[in-house]
Amino acid sequence: MRHIKHVAGLTRWGLALVFVLFALIASLRPAFADDPLPSWNETASKVAIVAFVDRVTRDESPDFVPPAERIAVFDNDGTLWAEQPVYFQLAFALDRVKALAPEHPEWQNQEPFKYILQDDVKSALAGGNKAVAQIVAATHSGMTTDEFEQIVADWIAASKHPITGRPYTEMVYQPMLELLAYLRANGFKTFIASGGGIDFMRVFSERVYGIPPEQVIGSSGVTEFQMIDGIPVIMRMPEIAFIDDKDSKPLGIQRFIGHRPIAAFGNSDGDLQMLQWVTAGEGARFGLIVHHTDAAREWAYDRVSSIGRLDAALDAAAQQDWIVVDMKADWRTIYPPK
Amino acid sequence: MRHIKHVAGLTRWGLALVFVLFALIASLRPAFADDPLPSWNETASKVAIVAFVDRVTRDESPDFVPPAERIAVFDNDGTLWAEQPVYFQLAFALDRVKALAPEHPEWQNQEPFKYILQDDVKSALAGGNKAVAQIVAATHSGMTTDEFEQIVADWIAASKHPITGRPYTEMVYQPMLELLAYLRANGFKTFIASGGGIDFMRVFSERVYGIPPEQVIGSSGVTEFQMIDGIPVIMRMPEIAFIDDKDSKPLGIQRFIGHRPIAAFGNSDGDLQMLQWVTAGEGARFGLIVHHTDAAREWAYDRVSSIGRLDAALDAAAQQDWIVVDMKADWRTIYPPK
Repeated sequence: MRHIKHVAGLTRWGLALVFVLFALIASLRPAFADDPLPSWNETASKVAIVAFVDRVTRDESPDFVPPAERIAVFDNDGTLWAEQPVYFQLAFALDRVKALAPEHPEWQNQEPFKYILQDDVKSALAGGNKAVAQIVAATHSGMTTDEFEQIVADWIAASKHPITGRPYTEMVYQPMLELLAYLRANGFKTFIASGGGIDFMRVFSERVYGIPPEQVIGSSGVTEFQMIDGIPVIMRMPEIAFIDDKDSKPLGIQRFIGHRPIAAFGNSDGDLQMLQWVTAGEGARFGLIVHHTDAAREWAYDRVSSIGRLDAALDAAAQQDWIVVDMKADWRTIYPPK
Repeated sequence: MRHIKHVAGLTRWGLALVFVLFALIASLRPAFADDPLPSWNETASKVAIVAFVDRVTRDESPDFVPPAERIAVFDNDGTLWAEQPVYFQLAFALDRVKALAPEHPEWQNQEPFKYILQDDVKSALAGGNKAVAQIVAATHSGMTTDEFEQIVADWIAASKHPITGRPYTEMVYQPMLELLAYLRANGFKTFIASGGGIDFMRVFSERVYGIPPEQVIGSSGVTEFQMIDGIPVIMRMPEIAFIDDKDSKPLGIQRFIGHRPIAAFGNSDGDLQMLQWVTAGEGARFGLIVHHTDAAREWAYDRVSSIGRLDAALDAAAQQDWIVVDMKADWRTIYPPK
């Protein structure tokens, strides 16, 4: 009986507490609801993003853009997720070489594979484009498209970033996830346009970025239609068909989307021509470069980096009206909460 | 006064008539509302379409497919619009040769152009693939992508079909327009996968079919990124990059969409591999071939036609569970009302 009374007392206080909390939440809610970009500090970058979206979506705006033309393209490596200490797809390829090594005893004495098996990535990549092409062919071809999808899905589920220890799919930028969602909430269609492998990114793009496979543009290899025991399959061949980088990025966008986006987001010289082409269109346009300036929370690199070099595009940004995001100053958080 | 009385009398009768009509419409409305495919006769083809859509969209169905995977691909020529007496894009190319002839006096003595200028299409095409490639290069390249879009838009707005006298964009199949809308109303994403030129189709695909440019797959030429007086443009080059037909159709679909559709719609042997690959996937699948059987209202052709030949795919349809639409028997109307 005493016990029950005690509980009832607690319940009365509990109810009061709930009411107070409700009142508090109700008073705070409008402030939160008004901010679709909570991981962005209140700096010029955020102001510019919100102003652009308002400019193209407000009915009475002279720069109003109908939803069908609200297309935004995003680079992936270094723009939506990190790209250090090596491009994550290269980490995948290196892991695949090791996994496949038992079937390839000849790799023990063959460049670049022998270096990978000795964990000497620098020597493996010293062979330049030829070495990369050999690694890509050995790890990205010789299977059906369905099989490749499964291989990537298994790898991405099991692998961790070598420095942070987090899954690669958590090495994405929380402010950019919010930006993608904010644009979509405002009628934009968001696309990836990346130098990364198109079928590699498609495995996680929907789950991680909310971008379905059919809105992913990237580099690709030659494929072949084959009938195997009466079953039609698409085989991945060892030749590279299209590298979606630099001059070719606008071409990939035009080929896949068929009209010029009104906004482009990149982080390196590989995105320069995409930014030029997108922002040269008529009407309101938006170009943004993510500048890696945060050595403490992420990495700091630009003009002399071999990965994600940002040199010519940084100069161009100053001449054009492109926003340069200073990661250190502009982003309240870098990665999503664990 | 007598006049006014007369009018009032008419009005009273008119009102009564309106009420009767309203009652009639109200009684009929559920029947119409229930039929999303009014231009399809109540034959096996329509029953199969409705049964498939029900099977993949009903929550409790064992073959339920989530909306993200409800992808349907449609061939264009002969499937969504007519393709006789010549592919409409060829009619465009022939018209362009004539329009450009004053700038090319050398064409008067040069095959295949001289034949086109003499209205002798048969001789012009006697040169086979080489002649077609020359015609395509002369009419589809040498301008920016923006300029080409305008050229096609102007042509399609001004041109008429040589036999019916209707604009080409009205030579589309009303039953297929209803089918596209029906699928979309059931959460499908509809794509074109056609041997036609990708940028040609994109000019009218949204307006005519409700299919936006980014959901159009087709043949394409080589493009090049160029800076002209500091302005970035994409130039159309004279080489063909990709012919989206036969073996290559599944490859184009995989490249652009990134996952296997669950339904494919075609009309010729050019669609065979697309139909094979799509219907070989796991779960509920749907393949449909439009068979041109109506010489009176459209055209009748199949195994021996040089345009839209339907031979191997017709045999395959009998072995697989593909629906073969008999235009004459299955379609109540062919074209949209004028």
